[in-house]
Amino acid sequence: MSLVVQKFGGSSVANAERVFNVARIITDTYKAGNQVVVVVSAQGDTTDDLIEKAKEITDRPSKREMDMLLATGEQISISLLAMAIEKLGCPAISLTGWQAGFNTSSQYGMARIHKINTERLKIELDKNKIVVVAGFQGLNKHDDITTLGRGGSDTSAVALAAALSADVCEIYTDVDGVYTTDPRICPDAVKLNDISYDEMLELASLGANVLNNRSVEMAKKYNVKLKVLSSLHRVEGTTVKEVKDVEKMMVRGVARDNNTASIAVMEVDDQPGKVYTIFSKLAAKDINVDLIIQSEGREGTRDISFTVASDRLQEALDVLNAANDVIGAKKIIFDDTVSKVSIVGAGMVSNAGVASKMFEALFQNNINVRMIATSEIKVSVLIDRADAERAVVAIHDKFDLGRI
Amino acid sequence: MSLVVQKFGGSSVANAERVFNVARIITDTYKAGNQVVVVVSAQGDTTDDLIEKAKEITDRPSKREMDMLLATGEQISISLLAMAIEKLGCPAISLTGWQAGFNTSSQYGMARIHKINTERLKIELDKNKIVVVAGFQGLNKHDDITTLGRGGSDTSAVALAAALSADVCEIYTDVDGVYTTDPRICPDAVKLNDISYDEMLELASLGANVLNNRSVEMAKKYNVKLKVLSSLHRVEGTTVKEVKDVEKMMVRGVARDNNTASIAVMEVDDQPGKVYTIFSKLAAKDINVDLIIQSEGREGTRDISFTVASDRLQEALDVLNAANDVIGAKKIIFDDTVSKVSIVGAGMVSNAGVASKMFEALFQNNINVRMIATSEIKVSVLIDRADAERAVVAIHDKFDLGRI
Repeated sequence: MSLVVQKFGGSSVANAERVFNVARIITDTYKAGNQVVVVVSAQGDTTDDLIEKAKEITDRPSKREMDMLLATGEQISISLLAMAIEKLGCPAISLTGWQAGFNTSSQYGMARIHKINTERLKIELDKNKIVVVAGFQGLNKHDDITTLGRGGSDTSAVALAAALSADVCEIYTDVDGVYTTDPRICPDAVKLNDISYDEMLELASLGANVLNNRSVEMAKKYNVKLKVLSSLHRVEGTTVKEVKDVEKMMVRGVARDNNTASIAVMEVDDQPGKVYTIFSKLAAKDINVDLIIQSEGREGTRDISFTVASDRLQEALDVLNAANDVIGAKKIIFDDTVSKVSIVGAGMVSNAGVASKMFEALFQNNINVRMIATSEIKVSVLIDRADAERAVVAIHDKFDLGRI
Repeated sequence: MSLVVQKFGGSSVANAERVFNVARIITDTYKAGNQVVVVVSAQGDTTDDLIEKAKEITDRPSKREMDMLLATGEQISISLLAMAIEKLGCPAISLTGWQAGFNTSSQYGMARIHKINTERLKIELDKNKIVVVAGFQGLNKHDDITTLGRGGSDTSAVALAAALSADVCEIYTDVDGVYTTDPRICPDAVKLNDISYDEMLELASLGANVLNNRSVEMAKKYNVKLKVLSSLHRVEGTTVKEVKDVEKMMVRGVARDNNTASIAVMEVDDQPGKVYTIFSKLAAKDINVDLIIQSEGREGTRDISFTVASDRLQEALDVLNAANDVIGAKKIIFDDTVSKVSIVGAGMVSNAGVASKMFEALFQNNINVRMIATSEIKVSVLIDRADAERAVVAIHDKFDLGRI
């Protein structure tokens, strides 16, 4: 008998028909002799509808009250899913975040899980029940309801799997698993049977919207075996786990991220502390920076270029312009028509020529590279957004990823 | 400084505009120097919408899961109302039933309040906050969410007022207070400034849908001063309290109840135990019986007639027919075209002639009386439903209630 944690997102339980589809996956797992703990998100657009309700009251709701409001979304879906499971003839019980023992930090809207008190969960499992837990929520030390922020249900599921020492944590999505690249861009894309935590982390942060990064980090930390699979098609998904046999692996996937924009801070005095000022101002606003390049500017100055997420671009420019009396840049320019294309693979660093092979593919297709960044397991390039899809296909082809 | 508990029903907070209307009543009370605890129901049709969602899943949802589902309705309204109060510039915090310390019995869907642990509430009041509490819900000994049943928010408010020794418990409704009779039927109806708990109880159970009976019983038990007033018009309402000066009082109000039907169990053997069998079978199904009359039937048998609520009629008939091998009635007949009209007044019992004055009014208007029942503070008659409104006006007029 295995203990399986299964997580279903909001679109998987958007209406009664889908709730039953999910309930059947759960009861099949249970009837096969497993203990099952389910984590579920709010139905379809429920969270957006609740946010809309708050907006009708005030532009700036207190974060505490917002969490009180949003937590109802998951409470609705756990009760409905428990009813559906019972209707299919299996015993079930729903638990809110606080009933399931989720203790979090006090930060409303983006709380961190401190600890899960699994006592109640274990009691219900011992009664042979399928336990349906509200994702995305917990309780802070003031006994107030908190939420973990968007994508938090993945984190809830992995944290539960870790706390219960579950055999596997299955994340059900609307895709069949993790592909070598986006199949909508590149029809040759192939589903990977397994992938390492680090590779998954890079792919997730590079635009593959399959798994929330925080949940992968947590899975890596607690060595939780993750499985990404579809709630619609009953096919084997992709397993995310610690992969020892790194030598054999090369490039595993190609990712494209359109949510990126470049900023250039031009002609800054070449003094220690200027770079620190720029990035600490951005960090203070929680704006992540990527692909940093420093080059020589005119007359002994420096040009400092980097990328930020497109949806934080305006905020980043505001921060930099406001701080420019300290920074002293001649001008601050930006470009919002770029994409980041990356290759990811754990064995990459020990294999010379991977990056150059990528550049070759781009060169052969007349695609201009503006910025480059590498890590141990990835190479990213910044290119014109108009070239992005062509670049993905070219690189995918060059590395023969369709014939793995 | 007074401590005021204010309760608002679902229609009072049905949309953003109404939420702000309620928030203004609350903040005005707070700014006048009072401590304020608010109890609120689910918005408008939310509860019905949630029931509909459950119905799409199953005809017979578990009661535990149903309570888990329904409790979200009040959780939504408390958070929105707290946001609106804050928007108006006063400090507020929302608390769910369990956060507010409501300990209840385990019966899902119709839990009883055992105890309110007011610790958290007092902490928030000491911080000068307006505390907005979810009505209708609590937590049982299993740490599971329970609901108190429809109308439960009134009970929540009165229980809170009792636990906090509040100076007054204000119940806001869509009427201005308690009237001598329904103003829609009788334009002469007059609003009462005060009324005793017992009179209110009789009026409530006789069809005046102003206050939930359970909450009035609780208010009487713990001597909580209740006030019934309108959330739309800022006028003095009706105070419900212990009235000592009973001698002066006579008939206080006339009530009509259309939710009533009569059943006659005909020609039952005149044996001890028959009556017991009939009513114990109905009691086992929680079907309340009113206006019981036993008369002689044919050949030494008895006819037993009584009324039940119309919406329980079919169930009552099913119970009786199923048990008729024990009861042995020749036939069981019913009439669903009747109304109960009642006069209520605490001083009634000591005043001979009150009942006969009522009958006189009916006689003068050619209204036939089918059944009669009296208690210390009321006289009820069963008449044709078609005559009910005429009867109310005639009785109201006879007792000069419009000129109090």
